[in-house]
Amino acid sequence: MGKISPFAPKRLAKLPPIEGVRIATAAAGIRYPGRTDLLFALFDPGTTVAGALTKSKTASAPVDWCRQHLAHGMARALVVNSGNANAFTGKRGREAVALTVEAAASAADCLDADVYVASTGVIGQPLDARKFTGLLGDLARRAKPDAYEQAARAIMTTDTFAKVATATVRLGKAKVTINGMAKGAGMIAPDMATMLAFVFTDAPIAASALQSLLKAGVEDTFNAVTIDGDTSTSDTLLAFATGAALAEGAPKISRASDPRLKVFTRAFNAVLADLAEQVARDGEGARKLVEILVEGAVSKTSARKIAMSVANSPLVKTAIAGEDANWGRVVMAVGKAGEPADRDRLSIAFNGIRVASRGARDPSYVEAEVSAAMKQPKIQIRIALGLGKGRDRVLTCDLTKEYVAINGDYRS
Amino acid sequence: MGKISPFAPKRLAKLPPIEGVRIATAAAGIRYPGRTDLLFALFDPGTTVAGALTKSKTASAPVDWCRQHLAHGMARALVVNSGNANAFTGKRGREAVALTVEAAASAADCLDADVYVASTGVIGQPLDARKFTGLLGDLARRAKPDAYEQAARAIMTTDTFAKVATATVRLGKAKVTINGMAKGAGMIAPDMATMLAFVFTDAPIAASALQSLLKAGVEDTFNAVTIDGDTSTSDTLLAFATGAALAEGAPKISRASDPRLKVFTRAFNAVLADLAEQVARDGEGARKLVEILVEGAVSKTSARKIAMSVANSPLVKTAIAGEDANWGRVVMAVGKAGEPADRDRLSIAFNGIRVASRGARDPSYVEAEVSAAMKQPKIQIRIALGLGKGRDRVLTCDLTKEYVAINGDYRS
Repeated sequence: MGKISPFAPKRLAKLPPIEGVRIATAAAGIRYPGRTDLLFALFDPGTTVAGALTKSKTASAPVDWCRQHLAHGMARALVVNSGNANAFTGKRGREAVALTVEAAASAADCLDADVYVASTGVIGQPLDARKFTGLLGDLARRAKPDAYEQAARAIMTTDTFAKVATATVRLGKAKVTINGMAKGAGMIAPDMATMLAFVFTDAPIAASALQSLLKAGVEDTFNAVTIDGDTSTSDTLLAFATGAALAEGAPKISRASDPRLKVFTRAFNAVLADLAEQVARDGEGARKLVEILVEGAVSKTSARKIAMSVANSPLVKTAIAGEDANWGRVVMAVGKAGEPADRDRLSIAFNGIRVASRGARDPSYVEAEVSAAMKQPKIQIRIALGLGKGRDRVLTCDLTKEYVAINGDYRS
Repeated sequence: MGKISPFAPKRLAKLPPIEGVRIATAAAGIRYPGRTDLLFALFDPGTTVAGALTKSKTASAPVDWCRQHLAHGMARALVVNSGNANAFTGKRGREAVALTVEAAASAADCLDADVYVASTGVIGQPLDARKFTGLLGDLARRAKPDAYEQAARAIMTTDTFAKVATATVRLGKAKVTINGMAKGAGMIAPDMATMLAFVFTDAPIAASALQSLLKAGVEDTFNAVTIDGDTSTSDTLLAFATGAALAEGAPKISRASDPRLKVFTRAFNAVLADLAEQVARDGEGARKLVEILVEGAVSKTSARKIAMSVANSPLVKTAIAGEDANWGRVVMAVGKAGEPADRDRLSIAFNGIRVASRGARDPSYVEAEVSAAMKQPKIQIRIALGLGKGRDRVLTCDLTKEYVAINGDYRS
């Protein structure tokens, strides 16, 4: 506990300001002493918004609010708190959201419908929004365009490092920026694969196009990450586009398929992928980043299911924690996925070393070589099914005693 | 490691002999030094057999053999080894089965098709059947009708105690006996929920009736147990009926729906349930037995899916290991099941103490009371959905640091 992930970046990327976005944070004392736990972001008029939300049937009150209001596609403010997820809090949960939205709308001078909210932390305890609603007016006044790092820190829970990513690309005549932040740690699984992530850009993209872009981008990034197969009640990814780059000569984009958006889309997806990978690297108690690569499946969907079955198998994950190239457990996890697989065509490699081929241990298998490979901090498990052309990739981490310690003690 | 489960029975039940069944065990040195690892059971002519086998797409060579031969429904011998699962061993795996079957058929003086085999232990390493095929002739000569306890011990792997169960009931004019044994520990999940289980009876039941009986009985017993959501490549449950009680006045049963079989069916299911519960109690590293009871679901199938989602959630299981009544994680696991659920109708109780009702913490919630309940060795989580009449029950155990230790070190 309290250990920082071996994957924590030495230095955080420096995120440049984005015209039309201002951010402030505060220590509202919601749960954690001596740290910030409140993020308030304000957007200039005309900012569009898109979102991907948890599919949980027991979603939190803030998720319900976002789902209701995403349809109109416009945003002026975002309020995020850590320490309390405001999930499964019943009528009082909805009241806490209403109180937050009202205070934020007043501070940002906008409609309630233009405010988005997200909460992360403990589930099932009433969130006392009055702890922070009184702070929003002051935060609006001191919000600054270059506070992304503080923002990423304010939304952390059991994360051991702040997660940010950035990209700058040309869109038409303008240089546009994409900034992102995420918090992850436990309870990470599709769909969505992170608890909270926010992406900001000055590109002028219509809400419906932004929504298509986000939906496509999430599929192979956040939805391809799993820590423990558990899907949060609070998973929220929101993307905000201020459109400020229009004044610099960027074209107005109304469809995600617009060919002028190609370079932007690639950068946007790269920011999502970067954040999603950071979430996997910072899985609770993780000492290894694990990439499951499935090829030769009958389809991409089938490959994804098999990769997820392997990525979520406690027996595979504990073996990796023990630096044991236990490919037998990989076979087991492939088998239980319920997808087409032929035991006698299957081959498996750990970090490029083939350990199994055609239904049995590879003849070239050398224990010492494989053992050395398993000591690496990043482990790739490549599974070739030999049936078709379907392939997919999923990221996860190992399952350690620290995971059990963190999650056995979290609430108490 | 090496710790015995707190749930180990003080004394093993004493299993009476069953006419027509003889058993012998040996220490063949397959993997474990200084203990038995080979079981040979011989059945009198006329013995019927039924089976439930893993649905894994990468099933082991012995499972393939059993699946091929169960159709004809007759059995004369059973060979079980522990220490090596003979799974994912390719052509050599099939050869090891063929060698075993041939030696067993010769020792039991029967057809190859009347021999059943099962293997449990490490996956992916060739099984050298010659280590034990030479022993089968001698074992056949010294097989005895009262060696059930030795048999249950010979099939153990990481089990911390031997698992047996027995029942004696009237069938027509005769007293008939049902004896069962199982081995479990890790990699326990439907379908099947145990790696190996064998049931023996002297009741005269036709193979097709025995198969129906077994299929129905498994549903709420072995298939309602999960340790870690991982399905083995080797799960095998076989039931053998010698028919010896016919001579004592038991009626010949040709259909599972025969009303004369009612009392027997109840006892048969009780033996399966007893064995399945012992498997859950002896889950790797388990310190708590956990019963998930779901009621008010839209159907039994829906209740089962929700119960399994909760039972397999690492976050729920680690919370129980930490004696934390973290019902928020139960809400999360209900939500991720993808089944109909209404957050605002949900109520949850731990060991009879209601902690959440109608979408929020129960007003009567007293932390001290709930904390005391969580210290019990058996935890019942009751989830009331308030939607319909569907209910179901699943058994599991907690997820402890010992689970990770056992599975991180198992192979090395």
